[in-house]
Amino acid sequence: MSTTVIQTRYPECDMMGIVHHAVYPLWYEMARMDFFAEVGFPFEDMRERGVNPAMVDMRIQYRAPAGYPQTLRATVRLGECAPRKLELLYEIADEGGAVINEARTFHVWTGPDGKAFDMKQNLPGDYEKFARKAGGQCTQ
Amino acid sequence: MSTTVIQTRYPECDMMGIVHHAVYPLWYEMARMDFFAEVGFPFEDMRERGVNPAMVDMRIQYRAPAGYPQTLRATVRLGECAPRKLELLYEIADEGGAVINEARTFHVWTGPDGKAFDMKQNLPGDYEKFARKAGGQCTQ
Amino acid sequence: MSTTVIQTRYPECDMMGIVHHAVYPLWYEMARMDFFAEVGFPFEDMRERGVNPAMVDMRIQYRAPAGYPQTLRATVRLGECAPRKLELLYEIADEGGAVINEARTFHVWTGPDGKAFDMKQNLPGDYEKFARKAGGQCTQ
Amino acid sequence: MSTTVIQTRYPECDMMGIVHHAVYPLWYEMARMDFFAEVGFPFEDMRERGVNPAMVDMRIQYRAPAGYPQTLRATVRLGECAPRKLELLYEIADEGGAVINEARTFHVWTGPDGKAFDMKQNLPGDYEKFARKAGGQCTQ
Repeated sequence: MSTTVIQTRYPECDMMGIVHHAVYPLWYEMARMDFFAEVGFPFEDMRERGVNPAMVDMRIQYRAPAGYPQTLRATVRLGECAPRKLELLYEIADEGGAVINEARTFHVWTGPDGKAFDMKQNLPGDYEKFARKAGGQCTQ
Repeated sequence: MSTTVIQTRYPECDMMGIVHHAVYPLWYEMARMDFFAEVGFPFEDMRERGVNPAMVDMRIQYRAPAGYPQTLRATVRLGECAPRKLELLYEIADEGGAVINEARTFHVWTGPDGKAFDMKQNLPGDYEKFARKAGGQCTQ
Repeated sequence: MSTTVIQTRYPECDMMGIVHHAVYPLWYEMARMDFFAEVGFPFEDMRERGVNPAMVDMRIQYRAPAGYPQTLRATVRLGECAPRKLELLYEIADEGGAVINEARTFHVWTGPDGKAFDMKQNLPGDYEKFARKAGGQCTQ
Repeated sequence: MSTTVIQTRYPECDMMGIVHHAVYPLWYEMARMDFFAEVGFPFEDMRERGVNPAMVDMRIQYRAPAGYPQTLRATVRLGECAPRKLELLYEIADEGGAVINEARTFHVWTGPDGKAFDMKQNLPGDYEKFARKAGGQCTQ
């Protein structure tokens, strides 16, 4: 699990004075990048190897609004994990620890040619490291 | 059903040259505004009455990428419809008509006090008009 | 001169209910793309040739706010024009024709290697066409 | 002078792999908010009193591009300062301290009615505090 601190930005709030719903995917991406870094497979390594966790499905549940200025905390943990795909689960909590937003994203690994990519077969070292640090839930 | 034409914008594409996944909620909102206008309950009327379809759940499925420049077409149709809540279903198609993205959003009507609001009870005229134009699927 | 119609988007407005100042550069870019297309040197051609009008200076003057929903009109005309650089002048007007925003951007042409690029020397046909359509103000 | 640390975000980069020029106004706003807080007149106080430093002019000079991931540092210092208006000067530097971007913004104070507002006359305590902390350059 990784944790990312988020400071809301003034223009992220809409006319109603609350953070607009389209901002959350940006925050979840920041949290996801931190998750990958903590797992030991940061963005820079993905870029170097030409692999990418392409998003194919995203679901967000809005429990309570956020405002500005406000400090939030996003956590990410692994859901389903397999050589060709990845599910991540997220929560965003306010200063008091109350969960105000939840999400789930589903990714398919793509390789240098932009096509589906088998991490375990092509990058066994990264997959192994990733699988181990991510809690052993990955399909072997 | 309403249709909205979308011209992608240059900065909506990311480093990989494809439209970033967080842009789709913005397009779906534009399509949703057009849907409400077509139903006869446009944003200006909602604002005047102090009601708002607060988003509580959003799911997006990414089938194929979009680029720049590109012309897309978003369609919206009604899913579940009840006095206090609303489900909308969306598709975005490319120039050839191929669906590249799908979504579902779920909303709870809120009133001037920001709390849950019964459209049928408080604004029967709007609800009636809305329900009729939306295809008669609304709970009575 | 080119003209671009802009429909403001809901989340472009901030907490104060007016379009946030950081949105204008996005609109001016849309207008600039239309200007280049009208001149006969559209983005697709630039990309194909690997050239880019890199922004080095932007000045925006905010005369009156915009809201949502609102239809605006952006116009672009050529300022200084030379083989290696370009100045563009912009205005955004509201429905009644009142100018609510003005801008000036200054660009340096870069080539496939990302370095300064002499349009007249390397792409005389494009420069000629561009210079002619742009009103003959370009340095020869 | 105030300093703000900026972590670039993945979608802030465009197709060319560099931070899009429209992102800088967002960063400068974050830096400006930190500046106001440091001066002792934070956003929350402005909101409470109904005053706002409305932007009327912004100029940005792009010296060198930024990328992702990258850590930048924005500094803000006071330019012209008077009871009804404010000029701020900014720089953004990279990890090595090289200035990659500069800006100047010009603001007019507006009051609860949205009209021009004399800070010194209406909020002498805030203006005094602001003027003192800002370095004594404010018109008395």
